[in-house]
This record gives sequence, C-alpha cells and structure tokens, in this order.
Amino acid sequence: MVDAVIIAIGSELLTPSRTDTNSLHLTDQLNALGIEVRQKVVVGDDREALTEAVRHALQHASVVILTGGLGPTEDDVTRDAVAAALDRPLEFRQDISDAIEERFRARGRKMAEINKRQAFIIQGAEVLANPAGTAPGLWIELPSTADTVPSVPSTERRPSGSRQTQPSASDKLIVLLPGPPSEMKPVFEQECLPRFRRRVPGVVIRSRFYRVTGLTESDLDTLIAPVYTKYTNPATTVLASAGDIQVHLRARCESEDEAERLLAEIGDPIEALLGARLYSTNGDSLEAAVGMLLRARNAKLAIAESLTGGQLGQRITSVSGSSDYFVGGFLTYSDAMKSALLGVDPALLAQHTAVSQEVAAAMAAGARDRTGADYAIATTGEAGPKSNTGATPGTVFIGYASKGHSEAVRFVMPGDRNRVRGFATNAALDLLRRRLLGLKS
Amino acid sequence: MVDAVIIAIGSELLTPSRTDTNSLHLTDQLNALGIEVRQKVVVGDDREALTEAVRHALQHASVVILTGGLGPTEDDVTRDAVAAALDRPLEFRQDISDAIEERFRARGRKMAEINKRQAFIIQGAEVLANPAGTAPGLWIELPSTADTVPSVPSTERRPSGSRQTQPSASDKLIVLLPGPPSEMKPVFEQECLPRFRRRVPGVVIRSRFYRVTGLTESDLDTLIAPVYTKYTNPATTVLASAGDIQVHLRARCESEDEAERLLAEIGDPIEALLGARLYSTNGDSLEAAVGMLLRARNAKLAIAESLTGGQLGQRITSVSGSSDYFVGGFLTYSDAMKSALLGVDPALLAQHTAVSQEVAAAMAAGARDRTGADYAIATTGEAGPKSNTGATPGTVFIGYASKGHSEAVRFVMPGDRNRVRGFATNAALDLLRRRLLGLKS
Repeated sequence: MVDAVIIAIGSELLTPSRTDTNSLHLTDQLNALGIEVRQKVVVGDDREALTEAVRHALQHASVVILTGGLGPTEDDVTRDAVAAALDRPLEFRQDISDAIEERFRARGRKMAEINKRQAFIIQGAEVLANPAGTAPGLWIELPSTADTVPSVPSTERRPSGSRQTQPSASDKLIVLLPGPPSEMKPVFEQECLPRFRRRVPGVVIRSRFYRVTGLTESDLDTLIAPVYTKYTNPATTVLASAGDIQVHLRARCESEDEAERLLAEIGDPIEALLGARLYSTNGDSLEAAVGMLLRARNAKLAIAESLTGGQLGQRITSVSGSSDYFVGGFLTYSDAMKSALLGVDPALLAQHTAVSQEVAAAMAAGARDRTGADYAIATTGEAGPKSNTGATPGTVFIGYASKGHSEAVRFVMPGDRNRVRGFATNAALDLLRRRLLGLKS
Repeated sequence: MVDAVIIAIGSELLTPSRTDTNSLHLTDQLNALGIEVRQKVVVGDDREALTEAVRHALQHASVVILTGGLGPTEDDVTRDAVAAALDRPLEFRQDISDAIEERFRARGRKMAEINKRQAFIIQGAEVLANPAGTAPGLWIELPSTADTVPSVPSTERRPSGSRQTQPSASDKLIVLLPGPPSEMKPVFEQECLPRFRRRVPGVVIRSRFYRVTGLTESDLDTLIAPVYTKYTNPATTVLASAGDIQVHLRARCESEDEAERLLAEIGDPIEALLGARLYSTNGDSLEAAVGMLLRARNAKLAIAESLTGGQLGQRITSVSGSSDYFVGGFLTYSDAMKSALLGVDPALLAQHTAVSQEVAAAMAAGARDRTGADYAIATTGEAGPKSNTGATPGTVFIGYASKGHSEAVRFVMPGDRNRVRGFATNAALDLLRRRLLGLKS
C-alpha cells in the first residue's frame, strides 16, 4: 500500500482558532486512490522547520503533500523550504509570471512586483495549473535511492511495455498545493488526480454516494449497519452534519465489473432501507435535488426566512441555474416586518407569537402570494441561546404553501444557534422535497 | 523561548471525517504560558510510527504533549511507544490498579482484566490524576543531555534560590494526556498547569488582532511589510480570505509593559498606514463592527440581495443581538421581483439591466422605503461563470441608501461564483461601515 504524509503550512494553523481542513478533503481523495494517510503534520511559516519536516516525511512515506505557503509574501516559505529539502535550485519561469500578470490585467488591475515570487518553481517540477488563483501547484517526482524502501508492493501490476517511460514504483513524490480550499480542490482534482491514476494503475475504484436527511446518525446506523458491517470492501463511511448524512460506499477491485457487483450487493439493500429519506444517490446536495424537482415541474419557488437569517436563500442560490426556478424571498426579522412584507395578520402574531405553526404557515402563504410563485417555504423559530419568545430554544416551525394550501411542521432541534439554523434550513428544503414528491409525511 | 509539539494519536483522526480538536484547546493554554506550539502531528494507532514521531519531536522541541491512546485496548499504544522512544521500562503500579478497580466498584461494575494495562506507567513518570476517566496522564521530565540544544534562553530568569529543586531550564518534558476532551481538559488544568507554571516563569504574551478590508493581500503586504519585517518579536501573521484580511501581532516578553511597548512600536504605525481600511482592532468580524456602529446610532438596517443570494443576511444575522438593529430584507432574484418587491422602475431595468449602478441604488432605496429602516444596502452583479446580463463576470454593484440619498459603487472581483459572492458581501458591509463613519470614499 502506498502511504502519504500531508503537511499543512501556516502559522495561523498553529493558533487556537484555526484548524487544517484541507487534509480531510485530501484524505478522502487519497483513500479513493488506495493511498493511505500515515501522518498529518501542521508547520508554521518557518523555513527551517518546514525543510526539516519535508525531509523527515520523505523518509517515512512515498507521497508527501503540502498545502499552503505558496502566496506572494515574505511568510510564504513553501517553495524555498522544499527546494532546500531536496537540495534543488528555484528557477524563474517567465511564462508563469506572464500568466499571473495576465490574470491581474483581465481584472483591470496591475500585478504587484511581489507576485513574481510565485513564478519561481523548483527545478524539475511539473507545474499544476491553478484556475482559481495566482499560485500554481508543483508536482515533483523523485527517483528512488538504494536505501529507501519500495513503497508499492510488487504485486501491483503495471503494463510492462510502459515501464521505461513511467516513473518507478518506488519513486517518491512531493506535491505542493495552494492553501485556500477553493484553489486547492480544483488543482488536486484537475491536475493531480490524472497523474496519480497513472502512478497507481491496475486498481479500479467505484463508489456510491448517498445523501439522507430526516433521521439522526445513530438511527441511520442502527438501520444500515447490519448490511454494511459484513463487508470491508466496499468500505463504508458515514458522515453527519446538522441533519444531513452522507453515506459513502467505496469498492476497490481489479475490474470494474467486480466493483459494480460489490456496490450493488451492499448498496441496493441500503437504498431499500432508506426509502424516501434518501434524497440523492450521486452526492448532489439537498438544494440541488429540490432544484431538479422544481425544474421538472416547471415551477417557481419563493421563501420567507426568519430564524435561518438568509441561509435558506444562500443554499438555494448556491445551485448554478437556480434563477430558473427561484424567484426570491423575504427576510423578516421582526413581527412588524412579517406583517408589512408578508401580510401576516398582527392578531395572529399577538395570539400565537412568531414561533408558531400558524405564523409559519401564514409566512409561507404570504411569500407565495406576494411573489406569484407556485410554492413557498418559510422558517421561524427560536435559535437560542436565550429565548425571546417563550419557546424552548431549538423549537422550529417550517411553513409550506402551494395553490390553495398552507401548513407548517414543528421540530425541536439540538445544538447551538448555528446548528439549529443549519438543521432548520435542511428541514425546510426536505419538507419541500417531500411535498413535491407527493409524500404526506 | 519554550516550544512545544502536540501529537494526537488515533487512526480515526486520519480519516476524512474526523479532526483533532484537542490541540486547539492545548494551544490556547500553552500560549498563555508563553509556550509556542511549533508543530502539530497526527499519528495513527501504530506503535512504531508513534515511537518514531516522539523521538523526532524531542529533537525539535522542549515540550512534547501527546493526547490519546491511553485506553485499555490493544490499539492503545501510547504508553508502549513513549517507553520505547525513551528506552525506559513500563512498571506496574498496584495503587493505580486499585484506584481503577475502586472507580468501577463505585459504579457497581467490575473492572475488566484488560483495564490493568492502564496501571502501567513509564519508569520515572509522575502520575496525573484523571478525575473523569480510568486512564491517568503521565508527566515525564528528561534531564538535558550534552547534545541537545538548550531551548530556553539563558536570559529567562528564575529565582536562583530554587535552582536546586527545580528542573533545569534545558530539560525536555513529555506529557501524556487522555484523548477524550472531557478527560483531557481537567487533567491539563488541574495537574499540568501548576507544574508548567513552576517550569516556565516570567514569560508574558500579548497580542493585537487587526482586521482589514478594501485592499488585496499583496497591496496590504506592500504597505505594512516595511514596518513588520524589521521585527521577529512581535511575530506578525497575515491571513486573507475573499477580501477580508487578518493581521495578528504577538509579542513575547518578560513583562507585560515590555510586551505592550513592543506591540505599540509596531502596531501603531501599522494602524496609521491602514487608516479607515482597518475595521477592527480586537478581531471582531466586519458584520459585528457594522452592528456596533448601527447600535451606537440607534439606527435600523434593511437589505436587498440579488447576487449574494442570502449571504449578506446570513452574515448580519450571525451576530448575536442583531435583531436590535436589523429589520430584514428582500431576496430579489429576477427583474420582475426587483420591481414587485422593491419598486425598481421596470424602465430603469430595461435601460441599464439589473447589473448597473442605477438599479443597485434603486434597490437600496426601495428596501429602505418599504421597511422604514434608516439605512439600506443592496447587492447586484454577475457572479459568473457565464454572463446572463452581458456584464463581465465578477462585476458587482453595491447600493446604499440613507434618508434622501442613494448611490452605488462598482467593483470587479476575482475568482469563481462563491468567491465573488463572498467579496460582494464584504464590499456591501464595508460600504455601509464607511458611510456610517462619514467617509466619502
């Protein structure tokens, strides 16, 4: 098995308030390639410490992935430190400098002199294009030396004809990636994945990616564990966050047929057990799943948010093309605004408070009426920490309106203010999804 | 300066779904003691890998803190691995075994034979009582050897009378703590803090935490690097994300006065250079800074969002108590909604398109009028990737309205859809901040 060390660079990652999250995404990607993460390291913006960490990692793993420290400033030391660890010089690349300059020009700005630092590459490195930023990644293959242990087992096959042109199985590899996740992810996916696949041939990986809402992680696990615990291949991972659960199945086999057969053997019974709680079988988000249902019905959606404070709109509009079915909505953060903008009867508010089934339904109906949309959903509730309305913190009502109909459903959700808002957003999207599917519950 | 390496142990921390959070708490505690965290490492439940990691950490730091792997099962390897790294034997301690047995008995349960593993300690270790669990922590002081570099500078004073009974300043220290945060925290606070205070007297850390918007990271660096690069103490860290930049200064001194003097020496000129772009000197977010300005003026805010899709509302309402000054707003995702909900003249939309200075200003004015708020801000633009309006992707207009006044400012922002939305949200909050401060630009 090939193993990897991930090094995250940045003094901010050694403070009490920040943590390295890039490594979670990278671990997922590497595991899918059959590469095991052996160690994760966080180092500050310190050239000597990083040089030393890279040397040490190379002694103990065949793949070393670094994230961060590729920016243009003095404290971006990754290029220098890796060059020192490998004892290789840095070389200025006019073409990279030109590309960075062009990137600035296209935005009507001038490249600062300091950005030229990002045009230096380590001798012998392949440049990994960064579509979302100025710092390119680097891919450096190191020939194995006599005293390093071959890190890919000899049983792993590779086409013998290509032996000459492909790197040796015992080569070491260093990859430098930008630190911002929005840059790191596309560089890894577009530039690194194809290169890794060439290095680790003969293994086929196929996966299913289920997404589920409307039950707790432990309830889900009680339901499906009897199926998946019988298998180590496919490997099953369950991730949960604020009412949204992801179930990954990943089969690693010698052939595609074998992988698909294994996935069906475990995936099909899991799908049957999850039923309507399963909203995606391809990893799509809940807002994307809802968007497809609306689009298929040629229907328009409006929203009215209170406790979710904009999060529901943000989720819906994060889907590319959402303007085809989403008209907009209202953020009504006071009783007065619920009446003024949505037409909620002040008497209803006085009688039931804003945190009530009646007001949630009226908010949805008002949002639908005032926008002319086909459907509307609304959120109201008490996110906590202290209650301003007398309702228990965590109490949430989700309103739903369609032609001639409005209703609301009550939830009591665990966790702090942020978690309650996340739960409520999921619950609103899921209620809409269930109604669009014609489900009564 | 004393520096530390934190090693978190557990194979689950090397999966895509789990991250080490103990180190954040420990970093905070250690920094307060004047101990800098130099590196963080995550290692699986692998005896050899951990032994190697401990040896390596001891070469590079004077304090090594390990969390996890002290349980009773086979895959709890921390005691064994540290003993191997130090080449010291494990010793069975009847008194610890008795205490664990008593703990089980007090809960009406019988100690499993396997728990006796937790009664082994590394020779020479002090036992750290664990009030919340069965695994005691261990505190191991190692006398310095001739070939290790003293890690505390000789200028660091300690009372000479106590020299004999206190450990030498160049001693190394290894601390083993339980992994569950509910056990780790009390062991650290009750058992480790008093011991650390005896070892590390007389170091004070003070910091400043600036937040800045309205310029790029490289422009900021060009501006302030001439000030901060002259100093290694205070240490300066610069972090940037979607138009929001954080600058941390941290001074480490023998006295509070000295630390404050150094912070002023570097911080005051930086504050002068940043001027009105500096929105926080205590780490507060932009939305919190804006909230304080509104609260101080007893003023109400409304918003109208198009391209930010809810993100602006979410940022504003993420501040606790924001309902005191935020009334709500509108999410108008189509031209029709901009007219229907905000009263934007359809002729204006037809003439200038929705991505225009005129429409942004009219949206802000409409949001203010229809809610009765004192101020309103609005966002419209083309987030990309493809343009639906003819405007260059990244083109954003921020509208602002106050009594009898409305205006809009144009920006062209880099990056993908998500980044443009983040930039636009920051730009909207910052325009409001500047106007509330009476700035013209």
